[in-house]
Amino acid sequence: MNPAADAELALLLEAAGTPKPGNVDRHRDHGDLHFEQFLGGAVGARPGLDDAAEGERVGAAFEESVAGMADSAGTNTQFGALLMLTPLVKAAGEGELTPERAASTVEATTVADAADFYRAFEHTDVALDDPPEGASDIDARRGADAIPALRERGLTLFDVLELGADSDGVAAEWASGFERTFDAADYIERRSGPLSARGAEAFLRLLAEEPDTLVVTNHGRETAREVSERAAGLLDAPTGKVEAFADDLVEQEINPGTTADIAAAALFVALRRGESVA
Amino acid sequence: MNPAADAELALLLEAAGTPKPGNVDRHRDHGDLHFEQFLGGAVGARPGLDDAAEGERVGAAFEESVAGMADSAGTNTQFGALLMLTPLVKAAGEGELTPERAASTVEATTVADAADFYRAFEHTDVALDDPPEGASDIDARRGADAIPALRERGLTLFDVLELGADSDGVAAEWASGFERTFDAADYIERRSGPLSARGAEAFLRLLAEEPDTLVVTNHGRETAREVSERAAGLLDAPTGKVEAFADDLVEQEINPGTTADIAAAALFVALRRGESVA
Repeated sequence: MNPAADAELALLLEAAGTPKPGNVDRHRDHGDLHFEQFLGGAVGARPGLDDAAEGERVGAAFEESVAGMADSAGTNTQFGALLMLTPLVKAAGEGELTPERAASTVEATTVADAADFYRAFEHTDVALDDPPEGASDIDARRGADAIPALRERGLTLFDVLELGADSDGVAAEWASGFERTFDAADYIERRSGPLSARGAEAFLRLLAEEPDTLVVTNHGRETAREVSERAAGLLDAPTGKVEAFADDLVEQEINPGTTADIAAAALFVALRRGESVA
Repeated sequence: MNPAADAELALLLEAAGTPKPGNVDRHRDHGDLHFEQFLGGAVGARPGLDDAAEGERVGAAFEESVAGMADSAGTNTQFGALLMLTPLVKAAGEGELTPERAASTVEATTVADAADFYRAFEHTDVALDDPPEGASDIDARRGADAIPALRERGLTLFDVLELGADSDGVAAEWASGFERTFDAADYIERRSGPLSARGAEAFLRLLAEEPDTLVVTNHGRETAREVSERAAGLLDAPTGKVEAFADDLVEQEINPGTTADIAAAALFVALRRGESVA
């Protein structure tokens, strides 16, 4: 399939994988957030993903994908996952999807891409931390109002995300050349079973490895660290124990959403390298 | 969204709806047939659905969608649903999706569309009954080998499906102007709750109304009648009873797949008329 179709399927497989503690999955809705909104978000994002596969600028394709997602899902289902996928889809449209090609794609982003990124925040609600010191003029919560400051400073989208790498797991992937993403794809390829189940296993392993930055934003660093420790203790546990952990996080409304974004990107890499649901 | 995106979403919502007795759903895989293969089938079918939305002939768009589905899912997940959706997507691409426009779209099919339809059987395995008397030369199980006989007889795709209307629920929808499909869409629009759940409710009601022709093909008329009677007894039953019926059908490997095809088409009609997952 073309890279945009694989990216859409990766979003669907990520959503379907279960148990995926703290996230909506095949077996769990979260209050008013339903599994089917993730299906709608994935389908709605497709035109933007198609643009990325055809060589559109990363920022423009990302904004288009977020607008389509928000319109179809009616909420923010996959903002972070699309920020991961858009450059990876563009890279895959240009040739084999290697860490080098992914890194050079994000490094080549421009100030115009950064402006698109800020516009994307106007399409949906995104949970964000305070910006780093000295960066309040480019706080993404300001949306398009921050664009003049961006232009003034000459910041590319890569620059903006590099600034956020300490506080946001998706930004950290951009800054590091998608290191955890490619690692998790290797892991998925080594496992057997349905691909969505392997995505859920990769999610748990990623969560065990590093605190989820969305949990940090919403519940603080201490809670995020505890969640990762509990995940680490369940890596070889029977499914029932992981299910119980999943139910507990849902109950506490703790949602490791950034880790899910990285898992979606890892599923995309695995699909590009030949994994399939067939 | 454009009609092709809505059709893809309808396939995903149909697959996700639960409990949907006898079919793979969000909570049930069937032996080697996994939920994620339905996700892959829906994404793989998209290029053919795009063709239909852009005005391609029904047969050609159908064959393309089946080829993409089979390639992505590795099996026949949605052959019948695509045979329902392709003409409806083409009709929706031309204007408001009314029963009249749907009927005139299928009535306008040609011998070339019929030939495409026969070629589609070469992409995947489809469970089929014996053809009606005097029609063994155009038995769809012959695949493309039956095309010369089709041409000889001058049969359009509409003619071919009209011949099968007594033994196949999808063919009956073509022949009747999608009567049950539009009825089920009305029903979905009258209900409340997540759209995929309403799709599952419509599935149960359709199953209660008429024996499933795939169950007839695989298990005989008597079994199909019993399944529909049991469904009719559960129309206002608590979910637990429907879940138990679902588990029982899975155990007996009874799969009312044709009813699911009609439910997918009904979800598509409901989406075109303004329902959404948002």
